Amino acid sequence: MTLRVGVIGTGAIGRDHIRRMTQVLKGAAVVAVTDVNAAQAQQVANEFNLQAAVYDNGLDLIRAQEVDAVMVTSWGATHEEFVLASIAAGKPVFCEKPLAVTAEGCKRIVEAEAAFGKMLVQVGYMRRYDRGYRVLKETIDSGVIGHPLILHCAHRNVSVPDFYTRDMSVVDTFIHELDVHRWLLDDDYVSVQVVRPRRSSLSGEHLNDPLLVYMETAKGVRINGEIFVNCKYGYDIQCQVVGETGIVSLPEPMSVTMRSEAKLSNALLTDWKDRFIEAYDIELQDWIDATLRGEMNGPSAWDGYSAAVAADACLAARDSGDIVRIDMPERPSFYRSKHSESAAEAIR
Amino acid sequence: MTLRVGVIGTGAIGRDHIRRMTQVLKGAAVVAVTDVNAAQAQQVANEFNLQAAVYDNGLDLIRAQEVDAVMVTSWGATHEEFVLASIAAGKPVFCEKPLAVTAEGCKRIVEAEAAFGKMLVQVGYMRRYDRGYRVLKETIDSGVIGHPLILHCAHRNVSVPDFYTRDMSVVDTFIHELDVHRWLLDDDYVSVQVVRPRRSSLSGEHLNDPLLVYMETAKGVRINGEIFVNCKYGYDIQCQVVGETGIVSLPEPMSVTMRSEAKLSNALLTDWKDRFIEAYDIELQDWIDATLRGEMNGPSAWDGYSAAVAADACLAARDSGDIVRIDMPERPSFYRSKHSESAAEAIR
Amino acid sequence: MTLRVGVIGTGAIGRDHIRRMTQVLKGAAVVAVTDVNAAQAQQVANEFNLQAAVYDNGLDLIRAQEVDAVMVTSWGATHEEFVLASIAAGKPVFCEKPLAVTAEGCKRIVEAEAAFGKMLVQVGYMRRYDRGYRVLKETIDSGVIGHPLILHCAHRNVSVPDFYTRDMSVVDTFIHELDVHRWLLDDDYVSVQVVRPRRSSLSGEHLNDPLLVYMETAKGVRINGEIFVNCKYGYDIQCQVVGETGIVSLPEPMSVTMRSEAKLSNALLTDWKDRFIEAYDIELQDWIDATLRGEMNGPSAWDGYSAAVAADACLAARDSGDIVRIDMPERPSFYRSKHSESAAEAIR
Amino acid sequence: MTLRVGVIGTGAIGRDHIRRMTQVLKGAAVVAVTDVNAAQAQQVANEFNLQAAVYDNGLDLIRAQEVDAVMVTSWGATHEEFVLASIAAGKPVFCEKPLAVTAEGCKRIVEAEAAFGKMLVQVGYMRRYDRGYRVLKETIDSGVIGHPLILHCAHRNVSVPDFYTRDMSVVDTFIHELDVHRWLLDDDYVSVQVVRPRRSSLSGEHLNDPLLVYMETAKGVRINGEIFVNCKYGYDIQCQVVGETGIVSLPEPMSVTMRSEAKLSNALLTDWKDRFIEAYDIELQDWIDATLRGEMNGPSAWDGYSAAVAADACLAARDSGDIVRIDMPERPSFYRSKHSESAAEAIR
Repeated sequence: MTLRVGVIGTGAIGRDHIRRMTQVLKGAAVVAVTDVNAAQAQQVANEFNLQAAVYDNGLDLIRAQEVDAVMVTSWGATHEEFVLASIAAGKPVFCEKPLAVTAEGCKRIVEAEAAFGKMLVQVGYMRRYDRGYRVLKETIDSGVIGHPLILHCAHRNVSVPDFYTRDMSVVDTFIHELDVHRWLLDDDYVSVQVVRPRRSSLSGEHLNDPLLVYMETAKGVRINGEIFVNCKYGYDIQCQVVGETGIVSLPEPMSVTMRSEAKLSNALLTDWKDRFIEAYDIELQDWIDATLRGEMNGPSAWDGYSAAVAADACLAARDSGDIVRIDMPERPSFYRSKHSESAAEAIR
Repeated sequence: MTLRVGVIGTGAIGRDHIRRMTQVLKGAAVVAVTDVNAAQAQQVANEFNLQAAVYDNGLDLIRAQEVDAVMVTSWGATHEEFVLASIAAGKPVFCEKPLAVTAEGCKRIVEAEAAFGKMLVQVGYMRRYDRGYRVLKETIDSGVIGHPLILHCAHRNVSVPDFYTRDMSVVDTFIHELDVHRWLLDDDYVSVQVVRPRRSSLSGEHLNDPLLVYMETAKGVRINGEIFVNCKYGYDIQCQVVGETGIVSLPEPMSVTMRSEAKLSNALLTDWKDRFIEAYDIELQDWIDATLRGEMNGPSAWDGYSAAVAADACLAARDSGDIVRIDMPERPSFYRSKHSESAAEAIR
Repeated sequence: MTLRVGVIGTGAIGRDHIRRMTQVLKGAAVVAVTDVNAAQAQQVANEFNLQAAVYDNGLDLIRAQEVDAVMVTSWGATHEEFVLASIAAGKPVFCEKPLAVTAEGCKRIVEAEAAFGKMLVQVGYMRRYDRGYRVLKETIDSGVIGHPLILHCAHRNVSVPDFYTRDMSVVDTFIHELDVHRWLLDDDYVSVQVVRPRRSSLSGEHLNDPLLVYMETAKGVRINGEIFVNCKYGYDIQCQVVGETGIVSLPEPMSVTMRSEAKLSNALLTDWKDRFIEAYDIELQDWIDATLRGEMNGPSAWDGYSAAVAADACLAARDSGDIVRIDMPERPSFYRSKHSESAAEAIR
Repeated sequence: MTLRVGVIGTGAIGRDHIRRMTQVLKGAAVVAVTDVNAAQAQQVANEFNLQAAVYDNGLDLIRAQEVDAVMVTSWGATHEEFVLASIAAGKPVFCEKPLAVTAEGCKRIVEAEAAFGKMLVQVGYMRRYDRGYRVLKETIDSGVIGHPLILHCAHRNVSVPDFYTRDMSVVDTFIHELDVHRWLLDDDYVSVQVVRPRRSSLSGEHLNDPLLVYMETAKGVRINGEIFVNCKYGYDIQCQVVGETGIVSLPEPMSVTMRSEAKLSNALLTDWKDRFIEAYDIELQDWIDATLRGEMNGPSAWDGYSAAVAADACLAARDSGDIVRIDMPERPSFYRSKHSESAAEAIR
């Protein structure tokens, strides 16, 4: 049985997911593609020898008879429309982050999906599929450190490009932490405060870099988050959970240990693309497998909505200096799925 | 394009490779199976919904029209016959270790393959596909530590089963080191000496456990190998290469760092099956891909022969206490392939 | 030349400092002792074979002809009186923390010392003499990580005794961080905020344990401090400074690396007494040496005052939940000493 | 009570021990000095303000009334004579390594001491006083890893000076391992074999660098030793003991952990003088204290003799390529002291 996927958006990430489905993963065939740049869509279809129709627009692709499931990898501002259309068509849809560019947009998706009555939407938060985060969650869930009390984390990039705006450190960068910590702790945010350390002189003047994000969860866990997108030394993702009887930390990526030049050292990654490369494979394979079984395991529309609300609160907290409350509506029972356990199975 | 594979031997490893080709990897279909236990072959065919003929014997399977390539995962004593038959049929063959149970048998395979005039045989030494060994080799090859001078290594198992014999610590256990170090150093062995430390009281009386294996290579590298198959504490594979300007060590497998119970600790593996699980996937995918391209990348029949000759020398050295010369015939130019570079590509 | 020291208070820490001066360090002789428990003072004098007069009270000891310098290791509430009397007598005085039990008391000492016109007071903040903190400071001062931007730290105890009060996590525990970070960063605090994570169920109900302390310095550095005095797993002091180009962390105490019981592990300390044991020796030797040279290198009365003001602000912040400003008077030029450089020399 | 020490040889190490006894340690006074260069002896006496007679020669110094104990830090070839004279005078003597330049010379000392009937001689093998080796030994002695079976070790120097001869890698460098492993394992050597890996092109042509030394002990432990005196990357002392249930390794020297320039790193030492600097202090303090108590704790003349015999065997094994037996006479009961336990106390 093969899942026939239509891909909307054949840019960098879209092309890469097409490569995965075509050359690496089992169970899917890309049968339709579209892009605002039609020539590029055709070119990618040729590059991977796809037996795929090239559509004029995403809405037609979504409605196409031969498309079982939709992948939305177009420009962020278009995500909401395509996801809503997929739900309207009753088709499973994998949407790269963001689910929508506003929390309101996310909410419309959540409401549409709930009205439809079946979970169809998975959002592309791949960290939940990273082996390191996975074993971190397993350790927490095992109870060996007792109840989590504090989570220390950092998201550090070597540097960011010129087009990187002040808001992107939250909505593009820290958004991954905003999603993965809810999952890791099985918890929700209730407040956020953002403070600005001394600005790095090696960071752009328009950026508040680094930033510290202090959050509180419904269960009382405090999160100390550091965002530093011009840290110069490496691409470094840290996460440490302090529990009642012990502390567990996210593994460092594998590297050889060197003794050379008066140092005992391990190489750090410098390119974010290398960090979660395997997680993307596991994520998409899980989406294909679950979709073929008629299930939905991964980050849901509700998760995308929650991350968007938290990100908005972070921006408000950064600008006001205040402790900003994060108020989510009650999570519909509809969304109380067993996604994390299922995702765990994807790895084994 | 799909590689149609016939599998001889559907026991533990055979079944697992069938699972890989059927559920995980791209490009292969299992179209024929056989086993001395015919019922079990049928059962595995059913379990994985194979569209596969069940053959009475390996030789018929090898000659079958629909079989493009052969996988030999039967009992070790039968490997030589099936590999020779595959060569005779001009079909690519993946053979789990050992290539043959004697060096003489390996030599017959090497001669048959050379007579045939094309490399068809890949031996299942999966460590060459392990990401850790891969980055270790890349580091050595980069020249950053200068010429390798010494290699320290250890192969430690928690314990071994009752049927584990005295010779198995060489022919089943250290055989992996015997293969991977030739590849890592791009070198050949010239002598070996084996010494016996005090025997662990927790090891069987019939075993010399631990053992130390001291080898010399053609380029003058000295290898200090430790074999300890009842080390009790974990499954632990160590490899450290001392070069002229620095030292590089095989990475430890990924694990979370814990602070608990007065220890700062990382879990060690205890089951060997977990250690190279990913390497098996990469190995077989590379075999499928290369075979479809008409190439052969992995450990060759010559590599299998070399490991067998070295293992025989280890046993002789253990029993005599002498320094035993290892004399290989000149490597035929036929076998001077670029396998390691190709295997590297399999990972990226 | 020998420094003749009079010791006020021969309890645990007083006795231990007498042992140091008598059996370990060079250049000092304990010539006078006193304690509220006169019998105990006599007993300690006997135990160490001191040629020392036993005085009825601290004030007489301070004024005694044969006493060159005073050590105050009595009950905290008495420190201020004895330090002021030492200044009045023009005698160098080493005072264990706290310098005084209130910031007001510390201020009176600072004013008395400034009026006297010569630095006489050293406060017993021993961490500045710890080799780990020392090399941490040297690394920061070398400029290799650029300007410090963020400091992450944690002070964790296995557990605390029953008499440990809610305020002690600040005034007894975190007070060490309050002192050492000013020195490490060569900076002053400007604000503090305290938040309460979920309380550990293994901590007393009357304690806010753990606590998070967020501070800002005059140079804009943000400090994320964790206090967790019932962490169960070990006595663990962490300090990590994030700079513009890199991060440097306090070394872990030396311990052997073990491979056993499926763990790769290093022992963590569990008793705070073992953590800074060497720092006490270096601290007191430096005090003796500097005093004999007519100098004062260590933490000054101003440093004691600053820590007291910061501790008061922490308590106020904890109780109010507000961001509390920390306002210190301008530091008198009198106190702009080169103490840190001198202390560095004490170690080499 | 003060130990009145006479020092023979005021060169680098002699001067440094005089500094220790005068400025750092308790309980000793240097009351007599001598050197082949009399002016230099006087100069050192002046430098440290010693109340010390400057003697014409070592023998007169040894016999001097005011000298309680002797320190021999002269040129190696003179050690035997001065140690024998000290024994003849019935005076405790601390002798820097080597105890004598030949095993025969050491044997004469052992015989003289036994004839005298009381242990007077301590040899300057300071590693037994290193905190790292100490905790390593405590761990082994605790039984937590079961019986030791294998010891892996390495002695690596950045580089060696031009005057460094081929024999010095054994008699000056590896001699420390030869002493400390006997102590660590509470064992004796029975054989040694030396093999030569490929020579580092960055090492002198006259040196066999690196070298591997394979030893066997009376209890059956096998020692794999690496000597590499031009390793370029650091001064690195490694020691790992494999036992029946686990492995324990010598701690790395303390250093800060850095994240910078795409590396997670700890600095390695490059100067051997920094590695055991603290051990020298502990060693001499222990010698002073024990001598004042009329005891002898440290490495004995027997230990010096044993190391000399083992070193001779290493040289013979290196030159012959053979496995060389190490035959020691039975250890006189006289030398079955409790030195290791006592030395352990020196550290606490």
